[in-house]
Amino acid sequence: MTSSTTTTRRVEFGDTDMAGIMHFSNFFKFMEVAETDFLHARGLSVSWHADGERYGFPRVSVACDFASPARFEDVLTIAATVEKVGKKSVTYRFDFRNGDTAVATGRVVAVYCRSAGGHIEALDIPDDLRAKLAGG
Amino acid sequence: MTSSTTTTRRVEFGDTDMAGIMHFSNFFKFMEVAETDFLHARGLSVSWHADGERYGFPRVSVACDFASPARFEDVLTIAATVEKVGKKSVTYRFDFRNGDTAVATGRVVAVYCRSAGGHIEALDIPDDLRAKLAGG
Amino acid sequence: MTSSTTTTRRVEFGDTDMAGIMHFSNFFKFMEVAETDFLHARGLSVSWHADGERYGFPRVSVACDFASPARFEDVLTIAATVEKVGKKSVTYRFDFRNGDTAVATGRVVAVYCRSAGGHIEALDIPDDLRAKLAGG
Amino acid sequence: MTSSTTTTRRVEFGDTDMAGIMHFSNFFKFMEVAETDFLHARGLSVSWHADGERYGFPRVSVACDFASPARFEDVLTIAATVEKVGKKSVTYRFDFRNGDTAVATGRVVAVYCRSAGGHIEALDIPDDLRAKLAGG
Repeated sequence: MTSSTTTTRRVEFGDTDMAGIMHFSNFFKFMEVAETDFLHARGLSVSWHADGERYGFPRVSVACDFASPARFEDVLTIAATVEKVGKKSVTYRFDFRNGDTAVATGRVVAVYCRSAGGHIEALDIPDDLRAKLAGG
Repeated sequence: MTSSTTTTRRVEFGDTDMAGIMHFSNFFKFMEVAETDFLHARGLSVSWHADGERYGFPRVSVACDFASPARFEDVLTIAATVEKVGKKSVTYRFDFRNGDTAVATGRVVAVYCRSAGGHIEALDIPDDLRAKLAGG
Repeated sequence: MTSSTTTTRRVEFGDTDMAGIMHFSNFFKFMEVAETDFLHARGLSVSWHADGERYGFPRVSVACDFASPARFEDVLTIAATVEKVGKKSVTYRFDFRNGDTAVATGRVVAVYCRSAGGHIEALDIPDDLRAKLAGG
Repeated sequence: MTSSTTTTRRVEFGDTDMAGIMHFSNFFKFMEVAETDFLHARGLSVSWHADGERYGFPRVSVACDFASPARFEDVLTIAATVEKVGKKSVTYRFDFRNGDTAVATGRVVAVYCRSAGGHIEALDIPDDLRAKLAGG
């Protein structure tokens, strides 16, 4: 019913902070990489043009719980799973692991939107897009 | 009962993304600035040395809900408020505004910790620290 | 002949890396803040709309030499000076100091450009803009 | 005589700015990824412990010239080449390409250092390390 895509990403030197661990804000950058990989695997993207207009999935709510620190040169796996496809929004869960160790769990709610002339409008997710997001 | 500190910060060109708005991950960088200002206003910090050991407040849970986009050159106000001081943790709320417009609301839970030799240990928040965090 | 604007900016926790010092890439973010302050002080910006088109100063060459590390909670001063206004480009120097200590020196060359439909075109800097950049 | 390692990296949504292109500061983050790949391919790193002390290669001078914009979802190749191994420093060149298009050229000078108790000391690069960096 749900579908998942796994991304691998190394913690870089510049991703760490003076505590010697990945700065918490960078987990959201890693989630975005995993989200894009998830969408690419389904022939989709985070942002695209169609019929002269820009469509995309801006985020309206994000969160992350941290279980264990990530350090320089750790190679994290990030499993992106769609938890829910609502009328206009999609909810992702991101499970960060370092080998057998759970590192963090993130959540992102993104809304399907069309941009025109600086105005952003939320739209109902059409059926074909919904089917691709929900997997099956 | 609760205490609050307000920080002002401009959205820089590099804080935006190709959608023309501040990238969502940067709201967490702004929260950290506001958190540090909050702590400085109480004679505290996010990370400090005492008796040859490092103390600090690593984050264990963070979240942000977005109400309205922030754009280049917007000057945001970020009100940092302590919502709760628990046994070992402190919970902040961050209210982002652009003039009269609510932009976002963030939450950060940080745990009082001592680091020694790469090991991080959560500690009970001592009374004097608790009093400073809770304000009055 | 030359004109200068000074910006003050604190090194945040997330600006540091595991070596305990500001990560070198963040100096370029600080330069951008100083560049925007410089332009604002002269009634200009890094990016603006006029006559339905977007104008701005994308960077074509940047550099930074590091003399002394910057650490969490250091409050750096960044003096932005225009070194040269060429036919289509402006060259800035950025002097980073921490009190009396020289921290870094940066250079940015930005080209005056108009964007239209995804195409970026370099333009001759008009006289009124040149006068504002060169100060005097 | 010189040796080179090539890294591939996609431009993420959050790497772009409101001009719709990768923000110039992020080229330095990409260089760091390429530098780490270069060092890993030779059994080295950017930062490591040995004999209870920390060794590494902090950067003392960095630069980047931009030839062509990089956009969201572009997959850049970054060829890292050692241009010079000096007494205490190593100079890298980074050639960014997007397929056949030259995107940018970066340079980084890093100094071989030992850190102890907050003090950073530059050291002569030992012969075995020099041989690995210079390739052959």
